[in-house]
Amino acid sequence: MRGVSVHQQTAASPFIRACRRESVPHTPVWFMRQAGRSLPEYHKVREGIPILESCTRPELAAEITMQPVRRHSVDAAIYFSDIVVPLKAIGMDVDIKPGLGPVIAEPIRTRADLARLRDLEPDDVSFVTEAIGLLLGELGATPLIGFAGAPFTLASYLVEGGTSRNHERTKAMMYGDPELWRDLIDRLADITTSFLKVQIEAGASAVQLFDSWVGALAPADYRRHVMPASARVLDAIGGYGVPRIHFGVGTGELLGLMGEAGADVVGVDWRVPLDEAARRVGPGKALQGNLDPSVLFAPSAAVEAKAAEVLEAARASGTGHIFNLGHGVLPSTDPDAITRLVEYVHTSTER
Amino acid sequence: MRGVSVHQQTAASPFIRACRRESVPHTPVWFMRQAGRSLPEYHKVREGIPILESCTRPELAAEITMQPVRRHSVDAAIYFSDIVVPLKAIGMDVDIKPGLGPVIAEPIRTRADLARLRDLEPDDVSFVTEAIGLLLGELGATPLIGFAGAPFTLASYLVEGGTSRNHERTKAMMYGDPELWRDLIDRLADITTSFLKVQIEAGASAVQLFDSWVGALAPADYRRHVMPASARVLDAIGGYGVPRIHFGVGTGELLGLMGEAGADVVGVDWRVPLDEAARRVGPGKALQGNLDPSVLFAPSAAVEAKAAEVLEAARASGTGHIFNLGHGVLPSTDPDAITRLVEYVHTSTER
Repeated sequence: MRGVSVHQQTAASPFIRACRRESVPHTPVWFMRQAGRSLPEYHKVREGIPILESCTRPELAAEITMQPVRRHSVDAAIYFSDIVVPLKAIGMDVDIKPGLGPVIAEPIRTRADLARLRDLEPDDVSFVTEAIGLLLGELGATPLIGFAGAPFTLASYLVEGGTSRNHERTKAMMYGDPELWRDLIDRLADITTSFLKVQIEAGASAVQLFDSWVGALAPADYRRHVMPASARVLDAIGGYGVPRIHFGVGTGELLGLMGEAGADVVGVDWRVPLDEAARRVGPGKALQGNLDPSVLFAPSAAVEAKAAEVLEAARASGTGHIFNLGHGVLPSTDPDAITRLVEYVHTSTER
Repeated sequence: MRGVSVHQQTAASPFIRACRRESVPHTPVWFMRQAGRSLPEYHKVREGIPILESCTRPELAAEITMQPVRRHSVDAAIYFSDIVVPLKAIGMDVDIKPGLGPVIAEPIRTRADLARLRDLEPDDVSFVTEAIGLLLGELGATPLIGFAGAPFTLASYLVEGGTSRNHERTKAMMYGDPELWRDLIDRLADITTSFLKVQIEAGASAVQLFDSWVGALAPADYRRHVMPASARVLDAIGGYGVPRIHFGVGTGELLGLMGEAGADVVGVDWRVPLDEAARRVGPGKALQGNLDPSVLFAPSAAVEAKAAEVLEAARASGTGHIFNLGHGVLPSTDPDAITRLVEYVHTSTER
């Protein structure tokens, strides 16, 4: 396994050390969605290439992954991919429409539909292994974060047929036919597990399990209908020893359960201060977050004041901290504002 | 003031008694968005009439307000209006586009723009007084709830120019030019206050201040940049003695502050169980909510099981409870499912 030697190389990085709640020379920083839509060099290399195709071209995916590392000097790269890539890889008819997001041609709504969700084999995503191979040389001691969508979020796309504001069909299945729901989400847990294993074995030093939409659920429903599947994923990759980050938006009520599901690091959106998040998550886990992405539209002085508040709450939390936004970089963010923010976090936390 | 005699007539209703935390013969029920898009009779009477025009025709607004009361036997009517009606009434160029929501032709972004926000005079909304006059006879002892958008939500529409997912321009103003922000939101507080006063003086027995988008803010920002303006509205109408309901979506972190702002009843979305909400809100306030609107897409048995969970948490909260959804009725909800839910709540809580 190529993974092992890579992990030794990145183990001393501030990012990996912070994930493990070890001392760091400065607070490490990366940004969700740092690779992609906010960067002019991204739009340039992707010109005329549909997004899902760009994910499956190893050289292009590697280049897009590297762009923010070169430009912003962030402490980790996040593998450029999309939440629906593993679904496409097992043969689902899925496309990403600009302004709309993923569109599933034939949604999954009945027990018969489940048969269309076959297991993911490493060969289905050989482009991932290849892209990560290209990346490792250039990244050196900078860790690469692998990523996958969590079972609930994948299920919502599949059941609704695309992005949904209210997830009403998904919830109707969850409440109305809990057995079908459980079989669906367990199958997605297996696909997600296989996809993350490929990334780790290719050399990713950490992974993030993104449950983008799970903040739409009340805690009791999360515990009953979702947490077992997410725990199954996190448990299945536990043996690799790479830090597992678990994140969703609007999950203030779920932070404790998302940690319990088996995360080493819990990502927090900007609505819950990190010291309060630490109380909800409990001991033994690091935190990632949580500057409001909209703050980057304010003047520098205001950005630094808000970043200082995040760092102060992180210090008060008394656990490991990876600085990030509370959600992805917004498309019209000024890239220079991001670069300045990385510098600010690095210099103001130097030990 | 016509208001006074109306208030005597509705004071014994289960809805008003629950708002005041007095004993009730059964748990009262109403639904946000009960009037409007989910009802075929609504689409029929509005055929060919743009929504903002329907709000300004007294007979039509009264008819739409009454439709769910007749069909579902809910315990209160909510005055049919739209959040942007007072902005339109003071001369802003605002339209509601199907599928898009409000669109503001010239957004408010500079100090000079503030001059376009003049005070609201009762004559600007004489159609409201007239519509409520028509309603009172038919409603009898059933209370009418007046409503208005809260200053933050109005500000977001005005600054962004319409519905926004991330409110980045609004937050950039809030963080980058807090004085301009304060002047904007204070002006909106005065407009909202005038609009609610008209409704109460015409005969509304309660009001709901809707802060639809405020869940996008962290508690410290809410306290510093928004709460004073909302408190100004709630305080200014306190003398009427009508219950003041305060609601926003995704406001789990803000429930205590939204109560503190001067609410008699705090509305809760479905993410926080009502007994936990009661702990956050503190004593002396009733609660409204909080069934997930998506639950209504599940079979009846599942709807009743989830409604029973809400009623159980409400009992455990030990305070007054008005049953509602945790957000508005979704457009494609089956009206019969709503009627059955009202019956279920009434019969299962009969004392």
